[in-house]
Amino acid sequence: MNRKAYQDLSREELLELQSRLSEEYEEAKAKGLSLNMSRGKPAADQLDMGMDFLEVLNRDSDMMTESGVDTRNYGELTGIPEARRLMAEMMGVPAGQVIVCGNASLSIMYDTVSRAMTHGLLGSTPWCKLDKVKFLCPVPGYDRHFAITEHFGIEMINVPMTPDGPDMDLVEELVSKDPAIKGIWCVPKYSNPQGYVYSDETVRRFANLKPAAGDFRIFWDNAYAIHDLYEDRDNTLADILSACEKAGNPDMVFEFGSTSKVIFAGGGIAAVAASAANLRDIQETMTLQTIGYDKINQLRHARYFKNLNGLKAHMKKHADLMRPKFEAVLEVLDRELDGAGIGTWTRPEGGYFISFDAMEGCAKRIVAKCKEAGVVLTGAGATFPYGMDLADSNIRIAPSFPTSKELAMATDLFVLCVKLVSIEKLLEA
Amino acid sequence: MNRKAYQDLSREELLELQSRLSEEYEEAKAKGLSLNMSRGKPAADQLDMGMDFLEVLNRDSDMMTESGVDTRNYGELTGIPEARRLMAEMMGVPAGQVIVCGNASLSIMYDTVSRAMTHGLLGSTPWCKLDKVKFLCPVPGYDRHFAITEHFGIEMINVPMTPDGPDMDLVEELVSKDPAIKGIWCVPKYSNPQGYVYSDETVRRFANLKPAAGDFRIFWDNAYAIHDLYEDRDNTLADILSACEKAGNPDMVFEFGSTSKVIFAGGGIAAVAASAANLRDIQETMTLQTIGYDKINQLRHARYFKNLNGLKAHMKKHADLMRPKFEAVLEVLDRELDGAGIGTWTRPEGGYFISFDAMEGCAKRIVAKCKEAGVVLTGAGATFPYGMDLADSNIRIAPSFPTSKELAMATDLFVLCVKLVSIEKLLEA
Repeated sequence: MNRKAYQDLSREELLELQSRLSEEYEEAKAKGLSLNMSRGKPAADQLDMGMDFLEVLNRDSDMMTESGVDTRNYGELTGIPEARRLMAEMMGVPAGQVIVCGNASLSIMYDTVSRAMTHGLLGSTPWCKLDKVKFLCPVPGYDRHFAITEHFGIEMINVPMTPDGPDMDLVEELVSKDPAIKGIWCVPKYSNPQGYVYSDETVRRFANLKPAAGDFRIFWDNAYAIHDLYEDRDNTLADILSACEKAGNPDMVFEFGSTSKVIFAGGGIAAVAASAANLRDIQETMTLQTIGYDKINQLRHARYFKNLNGLKAHMKKHADLMRPKFEAVLEVLDRELDGAGIGTWTRPEGGYFISFDAMEGCAKRIVAKCKEAGVVLTGAGATFPYGMDLADSNIRIAPSFPTSKELAMATDLFVLCVKLVSIEKLLEA
Repeated sequence: MNRKAYQDLSREELLELQSRLSEEYEEAKAKGLSLNMSRGKPAADQLDMGMDFLEVLNRDSDMMTESGVDTRNYGELTGIPEARRLMAEMMGVPAGQVIVCGNASLSIMYDTVSRAMTHGLLGSTPWCKLDKVKFLCPVPGYDRHFAITEHFGIEMINVPMTPDGPDMDLVEELVSKDPAIKGIWCVPKYSNPQGYVYSDETVRRFANLKPAAGDFRIFWDNAYAIHDLYEDRDNTLADILSACEKAGNPDMVFEFGSTSKVIFAGGGIAAVAASAANLRDIQETMTLQTIGYDKINQLRHARYFKNLNGLKAHMKKHADLMRPKFEAVLEVLDRELDGAGIGTWTRPEGGYFISFDAMEGCAKRIVAKCKEAGVVLTGAGATFPYGMDLADSNIRIAPSFPTSKELAMATDLFVLCVKLVSIEKLLEA
């Protein structure tokens, strides 16, 4: 691309460009767009692909688990065997290390933090009794993770992300020195929002952490374990559970997963995987919270997907819908911004998001300008703890919900806003 | 009944009776029974009645709520409108005062206590920051309630039950004097285990409590709102929410309900009803716990039951199965123990339990003796906080799961054990 970087344009060139782009922006505004690229919501056609899931069980169905338990009745606190096996395959861990719960992994994560607050972990001091509890937060990251820790008054410390995962030099240093650091939030595969996959080396270094806090835990939110866009790329994530066990740190990790973005958002099942000791600890509280989760929906899952191959076949259909959406966004970004020096972006091969970094001090204005013209993006700053992106640079793009055509239109507007705000910024300098 | 009370029998008569009954017991033991009257589990034929529920939604279904929201996608934190309305009708409260959640009201109760521990209620001091938190526990009561409060280190104070509800003189006195008393557990309709229905006067007095603690709450577990055994008896429970509002105490109550014992145990939906201020408070945390509960199962409920009439029609079918079971137990108790002076029992017109009070110091031995002969009852003491029934008298009978024939056999054995243990006790005196 032979485009001249905006920084290399003269004031006159910038003003001329601004004038032309402003006209374009006014024209776009006049179109009255109403598009949403703010949240990782599945599109309707993606959901349509799972409609036969609703018919797996009918009035003539055998409602017994393979172990002979009636799924219609109480019991099976840890989930039915076939659902535990399915979720274990999806998460790449042994079935015995998985508890299947309700419809949301977010609830399990919340409960895990909440339980640590009120009761500690494996006999440790309840976190609510401590003066200070801290979590490491790779940034940019997932706003709902940060919201949980903020809710419990846990201090969040930013750790920069790299394409291989969090800055592990910094993680190792902080975790080994400060016993108040009790956890770290991770989305290890197709990270939210970058779409990065943690490298084997990163996983190995995680498993070999030497935390000052005996009750330090890695919160491993493996939300996109099978959400690959390309069959021919190897984005395998190393198994943190066995890595931790091998490193002599079996209890240091909680792994979470769900089928919210496999079957129906909100109508799926979620699971937690951990060491035997951690699972016993979890069950002690869980048995007070419920007599058992929805085993009928667990049975529906097990009968519908059968195994990892069944899950993968279904996700291939999703990928066929999602891939063009990601490519539509990337095509516009490449065409309009490559070489312009006013933004960088990631090229995810899976997951639900693209991360965009504007020039410093521009993100909030870009998001506002998009909104003014009818395109809603995730709020600037949302990808940082306390909503504070000090560089005011990161914007999360969620291409899953609109159609490819809508995405191209929305991204056209987005790049227009990036250009205009960047010019403003350069003219201010 | 002209039976002589055991207390009026001579030592010789008791010994003779003991010898005869011991033979009967040995014969019964030889039968190798394996019956369970320990938990309020629906029987398979009761669950069979809901199998068409599984077919309400199929691949051609319109999955939109009446408000146009796609139940397959994220959102609707407080539940879909038609499910909120259904649950409100079931619980007898306005739809706007209901949040529909996941499959278990127990989880909502746990979360409510947990949230009060970590964050307080409506801005009050988090309970975990207080030296002492206490709950009143009407006894005998529901073991899972007591387990939650015990888990959080909340001190439990016993309050005797009467056929009209808890001893309100005592409740009023304790609650008005002690600011450490933050709550009371209630099963107001067909109480667990007695099957009592709180009188209108009891409800009125609850609503007019003047608690010393500003964040005192009534935990109103309306688990058996529509679980009537007899159509022709009026067991209407007064609406505590409107009573509290009328009394100027709108925020003093949380009401809970679920369809676990309406459709499938574990495959139902649960709800909490409360004042607008309390619901806002709940939502502030709930929005961190989940993006939304299983809306598809909510939709299934709304389409299947439609309204209160639909729920009642379904429950009438349950009652037709449950009534003979209760009557089978009561028939044996009446026939064998009436006038014997060695036990009293309740005659519930709904719910899932019968409460039996043996002579003091006999409950544990009766339960053990039943178990020895193959009949499992709820553990003696389970109906009291900390599992401590100081009188060692109360036994909960759960007639829902076995067949009527099995129940008659199990109750025959039960009364035999009651007689034998009572004679032992009388001979010891």
